[in-house]
Amino acid sequence: MKKIGVAILGATGSVGQKFLELLSEHPLFEVRELAASEKSAGKKYRDAANWVMQKSLPGSFADIKIKECRPNLDSKIVFSALDASVAGEIEEDFAKAGYIVISNARNHRYDPNVPLIIPEVNSDHLEMIKFQKYNGGAIITNPNCSTIGLVLALKPLHDNFGIESINVVTLQAISGAGYPGLPSMDIIDNSIPFIGGEEPKMENEPLKILGQLNSDGQVDFANIKISAQCNRVAVNDGHLECVQVKLKNKPSAEEVINCWINYKAEPQKLNLPSAPKQPIYYFHEEKYPQPKIHRNLESGMAAAVGRLRDCSLFDYKFVVLTHNTVRGAAGGTILIAELLYAKGYLANE
Amino acid sequence: MKKIGVAILGATGSVGQKFLELLSEHPLFEVRELAASEKSAGKKYRDAANWVMQKSLPGSFADIKIKECRPNLDSKIVFSALDASVAGEIEEDFAKAGYIVISNARNHRYDPNVPLIIPEVNSDHLEMIKFQKYNGGAIITNPNCSTIGLVLALKPLHDNFGIESINVVTLQAISGAGYPGLPSMDIIDNSIPFIGGEEPKMENEPLKILGQLNSDGQVDFANIKISAQCNRVAVNDGHLECVQVKLKNKPSAEEVINCWINYKAEPQKLNLPSAPKQPIYYFHEEKYPQPKIHRNLESGMAAAVGRLRDCSLFDYKFVVLTHNTVRGAAGGTILIAELLYAKGYLANE
Amino acid sequence: MKKIGVAILGATGSVGQKFLELLSEHPLFEVRELAASEKSAGKKYRDAANWVMQKSLPGSFADIKIKECRPNLDSKIVFSALDASVAGEIEEDFAKAGYIVISNARNHRYDPNVPLIIPEVNSDHLEMIKFQKYNGGAIITNPNCSTIGLVLALKPLHDNFGIESINVVTLQAISGAGYPGLPSMDIIDNSIPFIGGEEPKMENEPLKILGQLNSDGQVDFANIKISAQCNRVAVNDGHLECVQVKLKNKPSAEEVINCWINYKAEPQKLNLPSAPKQPIYYFHEEKYPQPKIHRNLESGMAAAVGRLRDCSLFDYKFVVLTHNTVRGAAGGTILIAELLYAKGYLANE
Amino acid sequence: MKKIGVAILGATGSVGQKFLELLSEHPLFEVRELAASEKSAGKKYRDAANWVMQKSLPGSFADIKIKECRPNLDSKIVFSALDASVAGEIEEDFAKAGYIVISNARNHRYDPNVPLIIPEVNSDHLEMIKFQKYNGGAIITNPNCSTIGLVLALKPLHDNFGIESINVVTLQAISGAGYPGLPSMDIIDNSIPFIGGEEPKMENEPLKILGQLNSDGQVDFANIKISAQCNRVAVNDGHLECVQVKLKNKPSAEEVINCWINYKAEPQKLNLPSAPKQPIYYFHEEKYPQPKIHRNLESGMAAAVGRLRDCSLFDYKFVVLTHNTVRGAAGGTILIAELLYAKGYLANE
Repeated sequence: MKKIGVAILGATGSVGQKFLELLSEHPLFEVRELAASEKSAGKKYRDAANWVMQKSLPGSFADIKIKECRPNLDSKIVFSALDASVAGEIEEDFAKAGYIVISNARNHRYDPNVPLIIPEVNSDHLEMIKFQKYNGGAIITNPNCSTIGLVLALKPLHDNFGIESINVVTLQAISGAGYPGLPSMDIIDNSIPFIGGEEPKMENEPLKILGQLNSDGQVDFANIKISAQCNRVAVNDGHLECVQVKLKNKPSAEEVINCWINYKAEPQKLNLPSAPKQPIYYFHEEKYPQPKIHRNLESGMAAAVGRLRDCSLFDYKFVVLTHNTVRGAAGGTILIAELLYAKGYLANE
Repeated sequence: MKKIGVAILGATGSVGQKFLELLSEHPLFEVRELAASEKSAGKKYRDAANWVMQKSLPGSFADIKIKECRPNLDSKIVFSALDASVAGEIEEDFAKAGYIVISNARNHRYDPNVPLIIPEVNSDHLEMIKFQKYNGGAIITNPNCSTIGLVLALKPLHDNFGIESINVVTLQAISGAGYPGLPSMDIIDNSIPFIGGEEPKMENEPLKILGQLNSDGQVDFANIKISAQCNRVAVNDGHLECVQVKLKNKPSAEEVINCWINYKAEPQKLNLPSAPKQPIYYFHEEKYPQPKIHRNLESGMAAAVGRLRDCSLFDYKFVVLTHNTVRGAAGGTILIAELLYAKGYLANE
Repeated sequence: MKKIGVAILGATGSVGQKFLELLSEHPLFEVRELAASEKSAGKKYRDAANWVMQKSLPGSFADIKIKECRPNLDSKIVFSALDASVAGEIEEDFAKAGYIVISNARNHRYDPNVPLIIPEVNSDHLEMIKFQKYNGGAIITNPNCSTIGLVLALKPLHDNFGIESINVVTLQAISGAGYPGLPSMDIIDNSIPFIGGEEPKMENEPLKILGQLNSDGQVDFANIKISAQCNRVAVNDGHLECVQVKLKNKPSAEEVINCWINYKAEPQKLNLPSAPKQPIYYFHEEKYPQPKIHRNLESGMAAAVGRLRDCSLFDYKFVVLTHNTVRGAAGGTILIAELLYAKGYLANE
Repeated sequence: MKKIGVAILGATGSVGQKFLELLSEHPLFEVRELAASEKSAGKKYRDAANWVMQKSLPGSFADIKIKECRPNLDSKIVFSALDASVAGEIEEDFAKAGYIVISNARNHRYDPNVPLIIPEVNSDHLEMIKFQKYNGGAIITNPNCSTIGLVLALKPLHDNFGIESINVVTLQAISGAGYPGLPSMDIIDNSIPFIGGEEPKMENEPLKILGQLNSDGQVDFANIKISAQCNRVAVNDGHLECVQVKLKNKPSAEEVINCWINYKAEPQKLNLPSAPKQPIYYFHEEKYPQPKIHRNLESGMAAAVGRLRDCSLFDYKFVVLTHNTVRGAAGGTILIAELLYAKGYLANE
């Protein structure tokens, strides 16, 4: 099969690097163009990027000459790893010029016709792009890293028992802040009970993701109350979240666990290349899940859940862990692109 | 003034060591006897203890010969740093023999006439020891390390606005597990969402501490619903707690903060040597409090609070931090002893 | 091809677990028996072992019933992950009973006819086992984890320029101490300038490994002076070593680097399954090599070298990094077994 | 006594903050002026500085209005915490204008008449300032943080036994890189075998410090060969150094230790306020010294030495630890100022 050429916008940053790492041997997509800021444009990738991934820079990318983030690229599919300070306008320029933009940035997540997608949760929302006024172009967004694990774990419960309210307190990894991100003096032997802008994202994004697509190609937000508290801890990768949930109908713990471990959705049915075989795992050991042990489950694409127990204030409490830069960022965005492909949205590319 | 001689039970462990560190230049108490397990008894302290405190072993203790934990000690005041596996019986033996036992162990915390004391919160509960059947001896207990910070921060709110329910998620330091405690392979680049026995302690101890002393010398537990989730993080000292609270009467945020910063209680009024001048501090910077920066506030005896904000599920959420081995263990126990002294309970010693 | 059945002695410890992780899909060897202490014998592996590897316990091992470490096993090839406190006698018992024992323990490393092998360095020393008096059984040993990286990097220099003296200072990972190993309170925000027994190993083992096999089936130790200083640092995996070397003939830096990157030895020529394609990599970036970035090079089996520069006291100084539990322990031992197989020593099994 | 007013140049950075922390209750000096870059000038200190010290910002400094780094300050004594990119010129401007500049920056360390001072080592070099052509102004410099611990430990050996060569490999704390310094992603679960510019400093500065003052007011450098290798580790504070030394006359280990523990120099004789009572401690436990345990020895001003043992390549090897931001930076600079005062160089201020 001939692979589909794609471009990465914001290729030199840490999310951009993770895209390259994950796409270096992808069965569907081939990275043909790398774009970044004016400062980097014109340079070879190896010279412009301070490669911080744990695997070495794939040789095939090292010598690619970086382009500017302007809609004159050859690849019609672009992954955006742009910083939120510039993503809004650039992504819109690309969409207007007919490009399919799949973005990890937060800027367009609440645009009325822009879908905010977790492929296992709301693949039906992809229909929204038909309502976009971009002449064949489109913008599709990936949620915030801490939202994805939460909603992935909650979706089967919402489907089966109806969620009324959600309380979540996170212990988030440093890689979530990008590179250079947190100074080491701030986090070694320390935890920080604040992450700028994170709590509102966790309190609002789930409402759109779990909402109902209406006939205007927009989403009627779910009617769920959410409270989030976000902390940074001295962990490289993997966001751990302590979740409490109140349900319309309280099931038994066994029923909840069965919902999780049997959950399959569109990506599994379509057998998408990056889809985990099983999106949600449940661990019965009290000390699990843990970032160091479970973040790489199913190549970092599955959610690890554990410690389900009764809660005196809500119905249940439990812990969920996901890999924040794989499932929670670049990997999640790539899975959206695979879904788009499988559902025929990239047919003409 | 002649100092009061005291003994330490369980002197070789990490809590015992912290007692020695904090009592090495204490104005009221002088450590005259060190007791530990049979294995250590008979040895010099320097040979029996693997000293793990950050300050050097005070020379005056190094050559003390360790005694067994039997009620034949000269000092009538004993601080218990015993492990819960043996504390129950030994502490009772000492009390029966007429000793005043001030304990950091969990064993007797729920005994009907045994007070569970945070000196700033329920100093009136000390009266309970008059109802103990120990012929002049007594047992007084210190709460769990994660309970102390929580209740210290909540007490002024309970007094002023009435607490209905409490939700708490902790990020606890490794020193809370004692020494050797957690293997380093388990916690470097990791968080662990489970601490054995900790959640029930946090859900129950506050009810006794905030309860009402009745005429039988027992406590009518407070009528508050509490849910706790406890996590271990890669921090040396300092427990950080994300708290949510529902109040009978919701005050303004300003009122809440004023309650905290103006709070003074018995230890401050009595000017006890280990009492913080101000027991609760409020920090307005969003990124505060943090273990590394605030754990040593007022020599580790004050609570640092921050991030007060509205909560969509409760009334307010906020963050509290306390030093778990000082305020949350040995320092808190010593403060109880100072309170006992100031209120005349140690008058004859 | 039918796989060769092997047994693991000391299967429940952290080195034993690493053997299982690395052998779970091995093309030549199949783990058929697990043996451990009396305490574990009779239990299922999943119940006896506290699994601490980052990948989940392979299901095929979970239900194996653990045997005792007695020479009545069916598998004639045994990998020893035994603790040094018991390895000496047990390994000898197995050898006497005709088993081929490939050991990671230190006990027999200096026995006159026991080879101490790094497959890329002294595969010719395997001949020594013909001189062992074990009736078909044999003991072959793997060096200490910090020795392996050092000697791997030095071998090409010794062959080409003759080494006169070696100075080495290490920064060693916590996994080198096994599990539970170092208490977290000892190493978070700390370094420890002492590792029991480690310095003598580094000062002596290289002399045997780089020595000459003589006609008695013994090794004439190399005539090299070595001084080692060993430190423990807060790193999960990967030993970093600062090396200085004095050579008989000082080459140019370019010649040294070429020696390294072109080095191929028996395992590469025989294309052994666990052999790195390239055993030694050189990184030109000044900040490389680093444990977090390079420890998994070639699945953890290659040495990463960098920072070659002139030294005013020796000829050259440089830095070498190897994965201590893979190349430096279980992986190195497995490579020895593959070498034994390829050279016909396991022909009859 | 009326205190001497001083100014801090570069007051907002992490070294500047440490100056403020250490000088907040100093018996001789009072910080009257804070100067920083144009960007900060005119603002209140609390608004311009991102305070990263572990103790809270002393209130007395919070409202001081920051001035520019121009020689129009009232205080005639200035401590320079300037970045090396600007320190050279600014410090010279101040000296020319008659100010006494005591600098932690590297720029003037090798100027012919500028002394490079460790008060316990070469207080006689202060005489050099009489040869400076600054009309009453002067520049005095403090060595690099990793140099100070090394030379402090070596001085008594050099005086008594004559040093021929020194080999040193460091494990340096992250605070040495200032703030923000190292990104956390670079150092958690990692070590980095390179610190820009550090090795040449360690190989050269000791030669000037241990050199002989000649009649031109310059220093004849010591004739010692030094090789240094510098590593960064995940430790907050405290540089650990593995040292090897060759001496003209090899003493017994006991003699070496006695030299260390009995060492007293000018700061001890003059009883300077920041001087440690004992500048060098020797610890006999094999696992000592350690950053977490010994960095605060004598308020961070003493060197902790341990592990003295024979070396097959040099005469002795040992380990030395000092607090890099106290003894190795601001604290060391303040001690120089106290020495200047005690020796009458600040008499007219």
